[in-house]
Amino acid sequence: MNTEASLARGQILARGTSRCLLDLGFACVAEMPLRPRLRADLMALGRKGEVWIIECKSSRADFMSDRKWEGYLDWCDRYFWAVDRDFPMDLLPEGTGLFIADGYGAELLREAPHRALAPARRKSLMLDFARVAAQRLQSRLDPGMPRAGLI
Amino acid sequence: MNTEASLARGQILARGTSRCLLDLGFACVAEMPLRPRLRADLMALGRKGEVWIIECKSSRADFMSDRKWEGYLDWCDRYFWAVDRDFPMDLLPEGTGLFIADGYGAELLREAPHRALAPARRKSLMLDFARVAAQRLQSRLDPGMPRAGLI
Repeated sequence: MNTEASLARGQILARGTSRCLLDLGFACVAEMPLRPRLRADLMALGRKGEVWIIECKSSRADFMSDRKWEGYLDWCDRYFWAVDRDFPMDLLPEGTGLFIADGYGAELLREAPHRALAPARRKSLMLDFARVAAQRLQSRLDPGMPRAGLI
Repeated sequence: MNTEASLARGQILARGTSRCLLDLGFACVAEMPLRPRLRADLMALGRKGEVWIIECKSSRADFMSDRKWEGYLDWCDRYFWAVDRDFPMDLLPEGTGLFIADGYGAELLREAPHRALAPARRKSLMLDFARVAAQRLQSRLDPGMPRAGLI
């Protein structure tokens, strides 16, 4: 139920959160496909292969319309929300991490519990992340390239 | 000993070869750092995590000035050259693969022998590849971001 406006606001939060994650030593991919009909707003990959997922919520309505967040817990070591400072934070469930973000940066307000991925899933996620990031980069660097092979 | 001109020609070959690799199901990163003072012109990552390295040589002089190619064999499952059709191909050593390339595409002319990476190196290469690709993509998508954290 993302309206155009809330989607754009979510992407703005994702940008600021990505900057913060870079400072924390993570590389990020936005709108990372996990399986059919499940995409992470941000997936972040640490220096040791840690996988974090961050869902960006721009408003109460945006949060309330999305009940699939527990599905992300199986795809990361730690799970976070990114919201702006006006977001009603008492909505957010316990046992999740929290970034406060705007378009220019973010702050890690609450660390998320750690639940380690199984090694096989970590390996396949890392491969998917690598290929998605590289193919998106290639399409930016070489706009004339054929698109058929994109994952 | 890359002159500006030969470097640019190498990058043109890399672009065409990357398009071909995309068709072959690989995602590519150019100028991929492997260790201090060793960068691969192209590193390609397949759907099953196969790692190929492709060195792009624009001329006899470009090839003759670079004697470090055997150092790449420890960093990939298969090793290739990419050259244009005027390149003196009898210079190229046996036991290596070959792409014939221009700026728009390439053709895999000779398959390279397979020598499987050790699992630990494959894992660390895949992580590095993922993080380099994602951070370069981020710097393209968000030119205003701080650069200090880039790997």
